[in-house]
Amino acid sequence: MGVNGVESNKDKHKVKLFTLNSNWELASEIADILGYGLGKVNVSRFSDGEIQIHIEESVRDSDVFIIQSTSDPVNEHIMELLIMIDALKRASASQINVIIPYFGYARQDRLARPREPITAKLMANLLEKAGATRVLSIDLHTDQMQGFFDIPMEHLTGIPVLSQYFENKGLDNAVVVSPHHGSIRRARKLADLLDVPLALVDERAPEECGTETLSVIGHVKGKNAIIIDDMIDTGTTISHAAKALEVSGAKTIYACCTHPVFTGNVKEKIDWSPITELIVTNTIQMPKEKNIEKVKTISIAPLIADAIDRIHYEKAVSPLFE
Amino acid sequence: MGVNGVESNKDKHKVKLFTLNSNWELASEIADILGYGLGKVNVSRFSDGEIQIHIEESVRDSDVFIIQSTSDPVNEHIMELLIMIDALKRASASQINVIIPYFGYARQDRLARPREPITAKLMANLLEKAGATRVLSIDLHTDQMQGFFDIPMEHLTGIPVLSQYFENKGLDNAVVVSPHHGSIRRARKLADLLDVPLALVDERAPEECGTETLSVIGHVKGKNAIIIDDMIDTGTTISHAAKALEVSGAKTIYACCTHPVFTGNVKEKIDWSPITELIVTNTIQMPKEKNIEKVKTISIAPLIADAIDRIHYEKAVSPLFE
Amino acid sequence: MGVNGVESNKDKHKVKLFTLNSNWELASEIADILGYGLGKVNVSRFSDGEIQIHIEESVRDSDVFIIQSTSDPVNEHIMELLIMIDALKRASASQINVIIPYFGYARQDRLARPREPITAKLMANLLEKAGATRVLSIDLHTDQMQGFFDIPMEHLTGIPVLSQYFENKGLDNAVVVSPHHGSIRRARKLADLLDVPLALVDERAPEECGTETLSVIGHVKGKNAIIIDDMIDTGTTISHAAKALEVSGAKTIYACCTHPVFTGNVKEKIDWSPITELIVTNTIQMPKEKNIEKVKTISIAPLIADAIDRIHYEKAVSPLFE
Amino acid sequence: MGVNGVESNKDKHKVKLFTLNSNWELASEIADILGYGLGKVNVSRFSDGEIQIHIEESVRDSDVFIIQSTSDPVNEHIMELLIMIDALKRASASQINVIIPYFGYARQDRLARPREPITAKLMANLLEKAGATRVLSIDLHTDQMQGFFDIPMEHLTGIPVLSQYFENKGLDNAVVVSPHHGSIRRARKLADLLDVPLALVDERAPEECGTETLSVIGHVKGKNAIIIDDMIDTGTTISHAAKALEVSGAKTIYACCTHPVFTGNVKEKIDWSPITELIVTNTIQMPKEKNIEKVKTISIAPLIADAIDRIHYEKAVSPLFE
Amino acid sequence: MGVNGVESNKDKHKVKLFTLNSNWELASEIADILGYGLGKVNVSRFSDGEIQIHIEESVRDSDVFIIQSTSDPVNEHIMELLIMIDALKRASASQINVIIPYFGYARQDRLARPREPITAKLMANLLEKAGATRVLSIDLHTDQMQGFFDIPMEHLTGIPVLSQYFENKGLDNAVVVSPHHGSIRRARKLADLLDVPLALVDERAPEECGTETLSVIGHVKGKNAIIIDDMIDTGTTISHAAKALEVSGAKTIYACCTHPVFTGNVKEKIDWSPITELIVTNTIQMPKEKNIEKVKTISIAPLIADAIDRIHYEKAVSPLFE
Amino acid sequence: MGVNGVESNKDKHKVKLFTLNSNWELASEIADILGYGLGKVNVSRFSDGEIQIHIEESVRDSDVFIIQSTSDPVNEHIMELLIMIDALKRASASQINVIIPYFGYARQDRLARPREPITAKLMANLLEKAGATRVLSIDLHTDQMQGFFDIPMEHLTGIPVLSQYFENKGLDNAVVVSPHHGSIRRARKLADLLDVPLALVDERAPEECGTETLSVIGHVKGKNAIIIDDMIDTGTTISHAAKALEVSGAKTIYACCTHPVFTGNVKEKIDWSPITELIVTNTIQMPKEKNIEKVKTISIAPLIADAIDRIHYEKAVSPLFE
Repeated sequence: MGVNGVESNKDKHKVKLFTLNSNWELASEIADILGYGLGKVNVSRFSDGEIQIHIEESVRDSDVFIIQSTSDPVNEHIMELLIMIDALKRASASQINVIIPYFGYARQDRLARPREPITAKLMANLLEKAGATRVLSIDLHTDQMQGFFDIPMEHLTGIPVLSQYFENKGLDNAVVVSPHHGSIRRARKLADLLDVPLALVDERAPEECGTETLSVIGHVKGKNAIIIDDMIDTGTTISHAAKALEVSGAKTIYACCTHPVFTGNVKEKIDWSPITELIVTNTIQMPKEKNIEKVKTISIAPLIADAIDRIHYEKAVSPLFE
Repeated sequence: MGVNGVESNKDKHKVKLFTLNSNWELASEIADILGYGLGKVNVSRFSDGEIQIHIEESVRDSDVFIIQSTSDPVNEHIMELLIMIDALKRASASQINVIIPYFGYARQDRLARPREPITAKLMANLLEKAGATRVLSIDLHTDQMQGFFDIPMEHLTGIPVLSQYFENKGLDNAVVVSPHHGSIRRARKLADLLDVPLALVDERAPEECGTETLSVIGHVKGKNAIIIDDMIDTGTTISHAAKALEVSGAKTIYACCTHPVFTGNVKEKIDWSPITELIVTNTIQMPKEKNIEKVKTISIAPLIADAIDRIHYEKAVSPLFE
Repeated sequence: MGVNGVESNKDKHKVKLFTLNSNWELASEIADILGYGLGKVNVSRFSDGEIQIHIEESVRDSDVFIIQSTSDPVNEHIMELLIMIDALKRASASQINVIIPYFGYARQDRLARPREPITAKLMANLLEKAGATRVLSIDLHTDQMQGFFDIPMEHLTGIPVLSQYFENKGLDNAVVVSPHHGSIRRARKLADLLDVPLALVDERAPEECGTETLSVIGHVKGKNAIIIDDMIDTGTTISHAAKALEVSGAKTIYACCTHPVFTGNVKEKIDWSPITELIVTNTIQMPKEKNIEKVKTISIAPLIADAIDRIHYEKAVSPLFE
Repeated sequence: MGVNGVESNKDKHKVKLFTLNSNWELASEIADILGYGLGKVNVSRFSDGEIQIHIEESVRDSDVFIIQSTSDPVNEHIMELLIMIDALKRASASQINVIIPYFGYARQDRLARPREPITAKLMANLLEKAGATRVLSIDLHTDQMQGFFDIPMEHLTGIPVLSQYFENKGLDNAVVVSPHHGSIRRARKLADLLDVPLALVDERAPEECGTETLSVIGHVKGKNAIIIDDMIDTGTTISHAAKALEVSGAKTIYACCTHPVFTGNVKEKIDWSPITELIVTNTIQMPKEKNIEKVKTISIAPLIADAIDRIHYEKAVSPLFE
Repeated sequence: MGVNGVESNKDKHKVKLFTLNSNWELASEIADILGYGLGKVNVSRFSDGEIQIHIEESVRDSDVFIIQSTSDPVNEHIMELLIMIDALKRASASQINVIIPYFGYARQDRLARPREPITAKLMANLLEKAGATRVLSIDLHTDQMQGFFDIPMEHLTGIPVLSQYFENKGLDNAVVVSPHHGSIRRARKLADLLDVPLALVDERAPEECGTETLSVIGHVKGKNAIIIDDMIDTGTTISHAAKALEVSGAKTIYACCTHPVFTGNVKEKIDWSPITELIVTNTIQMPKEKNIEKVKTISIAPLIADAIDRIHYEKAVSPLFE
Repeated sequence: MGVNGVESNKDKHKVKLFTLNSNWELASEIADILGYGLGKVNVSRFSDGEIQIHIEESVRDSDVFIIQSTSDPVNEHIMELLIMIDALKRASASQINVIIPYFGYARQDRLARPREPITAKLMANLLEKAGATRVLSIDLHTDQMQGFFDIPMEHLTGIPVLSQYFENKGLDNAVVVSPHHGSIRRARKLADLLDVPLALVDERAPEECGTETLSVIGHVKGKNAIIIDDMIDTGTTISHAAKALEVSGAKTIYACCTHPVFTGNVKEKIDWSPITELIVTNTIQMPKEKNIEKVKTISIAPLIADAIDRIHYEKAVSPLFE
């Protein structure tokens, strides 16, 4: 047994949904799904670059959700977010739920060398200090980052969305490939969802010997390989992995990731790589000039909208964690 | 009586002086005066704009001083500073003294309208949370900002340095002018140091009537006017004040400020204004393209070097507050 | 666009209104306007001066509002307030809203000299530590004091109430006068509301030369002058300002302030000054023996009652900030 | 006067009642009284002794009550409790009410010698840090322990339950006896409830002279003595007290306490002592092998159930404090 | 075994000793013993009662000791102390050691009734929040108060000083008497030091029946009784206890306490009581008008001076705890 | 350039080394290397299982190092540690450095399922709250755990010690094997140190299909395989991995780990597995009955002693991180 004695039909606090500057498209899509409008807030810059925020409607005693990816320009987007939280706190918002579809600085989550910062933890500290009362993010670089927070931290995953795409495609003889050691759990998860085997691209001490030595561990010959990572940044890792797979005899090479960070000459690297198709989500808003023909974007908005709805109506968010 | 029973001759902790990217020239000058070298730290950017910091020498148990103006690009400079503090904290620095010659966001120190942030307080909160143990700054926008901190906050003033310049010049028949209501205490201080009268440029509800209505309160006719402000940003306020003084019959018009923020077309405004000479300090590093012929820069480095020396040798810093 | 998707019709927490010993008259007036009774609390002294507080009705899960000006005897009133907050916190009050119509120690908001406290910040820290969840005050000495808090701080203004009085009076040819440098923004605001010009009484380094040197900056000759300050304490500043205005040829001299602190021989100073009428509010309860014939008191109770109502019903308080 | 202006009929948060491993019987009894089921939670051990907790139903936005006595094995029970609180906090429980019928380490509430811990305060700190929002306990070793918390701490007493038992018994010519100096207030309270006189067993510096020197202060000769303590641990104190009473001529000797800690050879000590009957409550679950014939257990479940009900429905808990 | 490998001969920080207004005589005596001067600090009142503090010498990086009893007027003395701590913190003192010989509000250390504050804990919270880094006090009302602090709290006792006095007197046939239930541990300690028996004055529910019913538990007939308490306030408790002892046949009646709070008509009560002599210490400075012929004061200054010396030279303070 | 201007020759604080009950052998070995004695502390249990700690020598102003692995019985060891820290804090220790060679609960570092705790983060929170000022550990389960702390956290690694053993052995044709996905970085590091290739044992969704499906990814046929993990607990993972390697044709199979947790029937599993030799360190003290013939223990004491020495003499600890 385990039923509650007293059921809730509490009337709800007002809910307010705001977006800052990083990803208007995603925020609008979420608002449309939920049937809410986006709250009015003016986020501008003074001539010296200082951010000016003015919330243009009352948030008193409201459950506020702010949508902001801390993507490039990451420091601008983080400061916008912290300043917005400060304004909401002083304006007596009841809950300040921060939705960070792409969490910048997540890779700086440990001391790779002595006397470095752990910037991902610093971000968690700053968000809590500014006044955030809950954080929600998607496919963090490592699961351990949840432990950087002492406020509730909902960690959603976009892997089922990506998995669905490949299922619909009906690929046979597939193998999921982790392009480096850090993504192996993620790859294992996708492989489980697709019920196919796993392989790993192994990089050996690249920082020392100058030339990267990549080898594929596992069987990929004649198979349809699906590389998965949490994010693609410069494209070096994934294109190298793709080449290593090509060398190892993979038949077709697909790739997917949740966060299309896409910097530098990622376009060239993807274009010239043996990757046939690259599936990403819209956690990061893509400027037009970064359009890559091979890239297909799937929207993460339904997932986030569902989470907001569950949080607001106090339903379990956990179904979205798996 | 009130002498201490026990005098200190404590041997000192190691001291380390670091600079980040905002003002290398000032930091080098301070290091030269103190006879220290600057500590080795690598501050770079990843391709997606994330800051990477690596401190390249041990700071264990050291008294560290970091020099960083949070000037334009303000959000980059603040994040560099917070990340550096996190790295120092984790690397077991004993004291983390943060020297912010120009403190960005200082003007957002109160709610001008409802539902705005108090970003200056947020900055104080973030610095404390990251791990700063003392903050030192110069000519903050308002004195009350010291109260935003719960760690020791040394507030130096550059006004005596500016005053000395005008004394050396030997101006007679001078009047000090506050270019708006917020600078009147500052103007009063300079007027006292120079032993001359005070005037005020009064702006009347400019935001409502569209056209600014400025009038000079006090006697300036035939006098050598010296306008003083804490900072000059777009140059609008000071050039309007100068014009109002010209209209009111001032003879020559000088201007001075501690922080040359200098944004937008400040060069044009200063050039076209009736200002003869504008004295500033080097709290903000001026890019070459912002060089204005009328501007003369006085170095604040001796003041800061003196403060570091006093803090390290546990002598009173208070003589530098007046 | 920007409407909320989900409106609130949340049933409310219980609300409880308490007063401590500083201003029973104001609290009763507020309670009458709101139609609530005042909560029962016993605040007494042990024979050694220790405060004893016993709340005589349940406050569990209630939104509590406490009214207490930290006026003379300031330390007694502050300690009453802190002890009351502790009692409410331990008795499981849901919200502890502290209404401080007159905020004592507000003038100690910066280091005028080295090695002084910032007592206004200390007060904010003590209130937060004791357990206050929101603070509301009126016409703080400086706006920056809002930044001393990290909990919501509602800063109301009584200037429109004072302005209304002079509008009703129908004074023509008026000028608003700031009696010292620190009140100039406040004077500018009243001048804007009344649509009249501004003047300033300038005091020059009085602490050094022994005799105060006051001069009026701006045109007051033949005009009806209205001096405005946030508070009148010993009456020295305002009576000197009034004399300076008289010397400068002002026709009639009015004065007004929000907080009638009224200490020492303020009665004599006001009586003997050229001030015709002095308008104050009732943020501080006036003992009978301090009655001054020239003083007219306007009640601030409707403003505070309106704020409580808006906070309780989660409506924007912002209309009361301007 | 003193009625509230606005009454509450707020619909309630969901309520969830959980128990950990220390006292299933008491928790079930409480759940039965309240008519709730117990929430589903899996509390197990890994093979290396690490506790594993998995809450098996949503607690989002719920008012959670956890029942856990920190009885022997105390460190296991405390860690279970802290880990459960962490899980609830991360799962977005609204309130985390911790009910600790028997509070372990309560006797370590002061420094008996230098360089000892104050473990009772440490427990309070750990509970607050983990995320508890309210603590409820019964007959703490000293009342001052309430002050170890800064969150609301409801301190119930089981003395009326014990008193009722003796009233029902109809003892005449009774005297209440404090078995040592620390229980004298407790004894005074029971004596007041029963309207009988008080005596004290005085122990003289036992730790120094090796043999304990006990003497009875007060008149017990020919009387029915009722010894009361907060807890019985090894049974040494109470059996010695009983012997001292016997020597002093007491007629019959009863004993009672709230917490039957019962360690070591307490069974032998009680059995061999002149105690006729020992009344305890069920704050600590008694293993079968500790059954002592003379012991009678009265349930504390109705008291706790009443407290939960009052907290949930925001009624005053205070009637249960006396 | 257990010797340290590395011994310290660290040169010391500067030490500074300050006193505020509560007990100049004691502070001067301590300073004389230590051979230090008292630090220069100006503590004054503005005309509206606000405290103004200015520390007139550098405290940068010093180990500061402040002496202040929070005796009547308790709220003034507490606020002086908190404000002084704030000033020291901002002036970069290294350690802020607060010596509170008499700790006001110590009796409010638990909830005697629901919805009361725990003011003693509030005081601890305020001292920590203001910036105290160590607290030292003497004979607190209950030992548990040490647990109200999370900073080091040195709890000295003056009982050996009182004991020494009676030993010197050479009283034979003595009995130590606790005048109420709360002082029984203290009485036990004195009885142990003097090697004499113990008695207790028992008060029965005085608050309900109107007339206090006191009876003596233990043998006092024909003996020299020594009543001991931590403090004497109005004198009611101790004079009633003395009368009860007289009725019970005590020969001579002495009394002693650490803290002579002495309020109301304590003089009359002591004068008219059968107490022969009352021994107190100077933790509270006695105004001339409170002089009572029967009272003999022993100085606590050597004890405090010894503690300061031990703290400064990092020697164990523990010998002073017993 | 980057030399410091001012070198330190600060005389040191006293240093004190204590051990609690988890690993006396390791602590003694460390003390011997350092040439310090172990500080005297009495850690015992009351009859009800409550921990009693009494530090038997002064720690005032000392740099204290406590050695305690939070190994089985983990909850006892953690509580000993927290209580010891509380005692040290109250006894005015200057630094409280906590050395946790094996960090229990480290595997609970993320939410594997919803509504679980993150116990590893809870442990970090509890250690900080109790008063630890620095934590030092070895080969944490994940590097990200460093980010769970906001105090300095020194993370040493024992991999070079293990690597040295295999180098000395002179194995040719070796391959390093990660026995599951989570150890792949660790395996990569050992492979780099030994300059040999890498393989991975891949486990497929074992929790769902009931039977574990293990396959080896990479080439191991005919090679000397060295399995590496951070810890061996029940031995299931490593013995399964060894069997998979055997099936895949590995020649000889070695295994190594830092932490020999060794629970359940690990002895049988190791004995019956194809593992030839298992190298572990002494972070966890092995009871005699857990002795396994194939296990060889290498001491980690020199590594820890070196770290203590570097911390005490303020030298960089970083060489021990790699």
